[in-house]
Amino acid sequence: MSLSVIHSTSATPGLVSVADRGLSYGDGLFETIRILPAGPVLKDAHLQRMFAGARRLGINLNEAEVQHQVDSRISEVQGDAVLKLTLTRGVGRRGYQPVPDSVPTLITQVSAYDRDLMSQSGIRVFLCETRLGKNPALSGMKHLNRLEQVLGAAELPDDCAEGVMTDIEGYAVEGTRSNLFFVAAGQLHTPDLAFAGIEGVLRNWLISRCKVRVSRPRLGDVLQATEVFMCNSVFGIYPVNCVSDAAGPVRTFSTGPVTRHCQQLTEAELGAL
Amino acid sequence: MSLSVIHSTSATPGLVSVADRGLSYGDGLFETIRILPAGPVLKDAHLQRMFAGARRLGINLNEAEVQHQVDSRISEVQGDAVLKLTLTRGVGRRGYQPVPDSVPTLITQVSAYDRDLMSQSGIRVFLCETRLGKNPALSGMKHLNRLEQVLGAAELPDDCAEGVMTDIEGYAVEGTRSNLFFVAAGQLHTPDLAFAGIEGVLRNWLISRCKVRVSRPRLGDVLQATEVFMCNSVFGIYPVNCVSDAAGPVRTFSTGPVTRHCQQLTEAELGAL
Repeated sequence: MSLSVIHSTSATPGLVSVADRGLSYGDGLFETIRILPAGPVLKDAHLQRMFAGARRLGINLNEAEVQHQVDSRISEVQGDAVLKLTLTRGVGRRGYQPVPDSVPTLITQVSAYDRDLMSQSGIRVFLCETRLGKNPALSGMKHLNRLEQVLGAAELPDDCAEGVMTDIEGYAVEGTRSNLFFVAAGQLHTPDLAFAGIEGVLRNWLISRCKVRVSRPRLGDVLQATEVFMCNSVFGIYPVNCVSDAAGPVRTFSTGPVTRHCQQLTEAELGAL
Repeated sequence: MSLSVIHSTSATPGLVSVADRGLSYGDGLFETIRILPAGPVLKDAHLQRMFAGARRLGINLNEAEVQHQVDSRISEVQGDAVLKLTLTRGVGRRGYQPVPDSVPTLITQVSAYDRDLMSQSGIRVFLCETRLGKNPALSGMKHLNRLEQVLGAAELPDDCAEGVMTDIEGYAVEGTRSNLFFVAAGQLHTPDLAFAGIEGVLRNWLISRCKVRVSRPRLGDVLQATEVFMCNSVFGIYPVNCVSDAAGPVRTFSTGPVTRHCQQLTEAELGAL
C-alpha cells in the first residue's frame, strides 16, 4: 500500500487516526479545486503545486496514484462544487522525525459551491492586525500550518469578505484566503512570496497570461493604487471597493479596466467562476 | 456539550473527523506530560501553557472540564509514561474563519516511556540547515503548526539525538524538541523566544529557579560556550558533548558544573526523569 485514501462526504464524514501527522504537526498539504459542470478548474496546476509541496516536505508520493484517485473522485461530482484534497505524511510514531516508510494519507471532501455576486459587486476588505511571519522554508506552499490565516480571518468584521495581511516588516503579502493584485501607474502588480504567503494557482496563471510585476509593496503602495483585486481559483476575481480598518474606511476604489480585463480573460479561458 | 473528548490507546487508536480544524489548519495546541510512578511532572505548568495558548488563539474552553478529563486520564496511568494532550478548535465548516460556537476537541494519548541514559552520557547535536521563521504572533505557543520542527528533525543523522535550530537571521533559538541552554562567562543563558520557538515548561521552571539570562545569542555565542545542554519536561536535561554539522564535528564540550547543578535540582524537585 502506498497511499491511504479517505473519501469523505457530507452524509458520511471521514475519520482519520489521531496519530496522523497531519493532525499532530500540520505535516501535509491541501488544495481546493473548483469543479464547474464543464469540469475542474486548473486541476493540473493544483496537483502540480501539491506534488511540488510534497517534494519540499520530503513526503514520498506515488503521484500517478494520487492523480488516479483525484480523477476518480472528480468523475463522481455533479453540478458546481469544490473538491478539497488533504495530503499528509500519514500515521507516525511519537516525535517530529518522519519515518521513511510512512504511508501518506489522501483525504477527498466534496461540497456544493454557493456562487455569489461579489465578482460583480466587489468587496470590502479589512486590514488585518495579525502579521504574517517571515519564513522562506515554508513560503509559497499550501501546507497545513495555517494558524496565521485563521487568526487573520478571525478578525474580519461581517461586512468584509476578505482581509489584507502584511508581514512583520509591513510589506503587503496577500489575503487570508486569496492573493492580492493592484494597479499602480498603469502596471499590474502582485507581491513577491519569497518570505510569506501561498502561491495561488490563479495568481500564477494570471502571471503567466498577463503582464504582472512581482514586487515587494508596502501597504501604502496598495492604498495608493488605482485598482485592487483579490483572487483565488475557487471564487475567481473579487474587485476591492473599499479597504477598512478597525476605525472605518481607509480608501475606496472603483473597479477599473485592468480588473475587468483579468475577469474577462479568466472567464473566457477557465470558465465562469 | 462544551468539549469533545477522544481517549486514544495503543490497543484502540482514536479517530477524529477529517473536518476537525486541528487537521485542516493545525488550529490547536498540544502538550506532552511525563508521568512518573510518583505522578505527573509539572502538570499545572503544562495545563496553564495550554490554557494560555487557547486564549491567544481565541479557543473558548471550559478549563475546569479539561482539567477534570486530564486528571481522570492520569489516574489510570501506571508506570513510567507520557501523556500527550491535543486540543483543537474542533470541527469546523470550510474556510479559515472560526465559528464562535465550535466545540473544542481534546485528545488524550498515553504511551510507555523508554528511559535512556543520555542525561548521564550526554548527546551529540546537529546544526540544522532548516531555519525557524520569525513570527511573534505565534511564538512561544506549543501549537500544532510544527512543520519547521518536522523539517529540522528530518535532517538529524542517526548519531545525533537532537538538533540546534537558528532563525532566519542566524540567532540560535532552540532544539527541534527541546530548549537550549548554555554557559558563557560563568552565566547560564537561554535564548529569548519573542520571535520564534516554544516556551518549554522545564525551560520556564529553570528560569524561575536558577539565575538565567534570557538573551539573543548568535550561533557563534553558543559554540564559544563552556557548557551547553538541551532540556524538555519529558527527558529532562541532556548535556551536549558535541555539536556537528554535515561536514563533521564543529566543537566538543564536557559536562560542567552548571549543567550538573541543573540536573540535580530537577531531580530533587521534579523527580528522576
